[in-house]
Amino acid sequence: MDDAFAKLPQPPYYAVIFSSRRNGEDDAGYGQAAQHMVDLASQQPGFLGVESTRGEDGFGITVSYWESEAAIAAWRQHAEHAATRAYGRTHWYQHYELRVAKVERAYGKRIGQQHITQERADQRRADEEPTST
Amino acid sequence: MDDAFAKLPQPPYYAVIFSSRRNGEDDAGYGQAAQHMVDLASQQPGFLGVESTRGEDGFGITVSYWESEAAIAAWRQHAEHAATRAYGRTHWYQHYELRVAKVERAYGKRIGQQHITQERADQRRADEEPTST
Repeated sequence: MDDAFAKLPQPPYYAVIFSSRRNGEDDAGYGQAAQHMVDLASQQPGFLGVESTRGEDGFGITVSYWESEAAIAAWRQHAEHAATRAYGRTHWYQHYELRVAKVERAYGKRIGQQHITQERADQRRADEEPTST
Repeated sequence: MDDAFAKLPQPPYYAVIFSSRRNGEDDAGYGQAAQHMVDLASQQPGFLGVESTRGEDGFGITVSYWESEAAIAAWRQHAEHAATRAYGRTHWYQHYELRVAKVERAYGKRIGQQHITQERADQRRADEEPTST
């Protein structure tokens, strides 16, 4: 199990893609608030999961997943979330972009414990990849 | 200007959300290939932009943006991209998830050079935030 990956149902569902550049200030306060927001979001109706990462350069992407646009709207209006967003805009971020999207297709692969030989990998490629010739 | 952020048109457009856990092997080869794929994608018809980041723990998110599903399908079938994906599945990743989504709404904010006073921030909050009372 890799908890960084959201465990999601089959599409369709909705994604909120939040890209941001931290301003380098108040790492402790930001970290605490970010974790608290994830905990709070997880308790909201319609929340499906979240994936988040940030590089050493301060640029980060967080994608939260929701059952419906109504669930996103309700979370947006959650009082503590709204207050934290307002605080974050002036204290933590240099720049951010937010995009709301409807996920239509999804697939993935977790490499198992077994060793994947090149032969099997080639076979899998033949099975899965559209040819381009 | 912050080149980490994609400069995108008004929605609608499409997003490919790729979450992955690196296996910690072949950093040099991976880095070179990843950059080459970004360069190559940028030349494809319908490519709009890309945002990407990876934390020190090896978990990363890359979101590429496209004009249409047809543009995504064409890029998926690009021979060099297909070969690199097949190689990456067995050599670079422990786990990955890919989701294709239609972006319906977007907004953002770049904090300007001017100092944002709390008074102005409060005013902005009053202007922008739906009240929750």
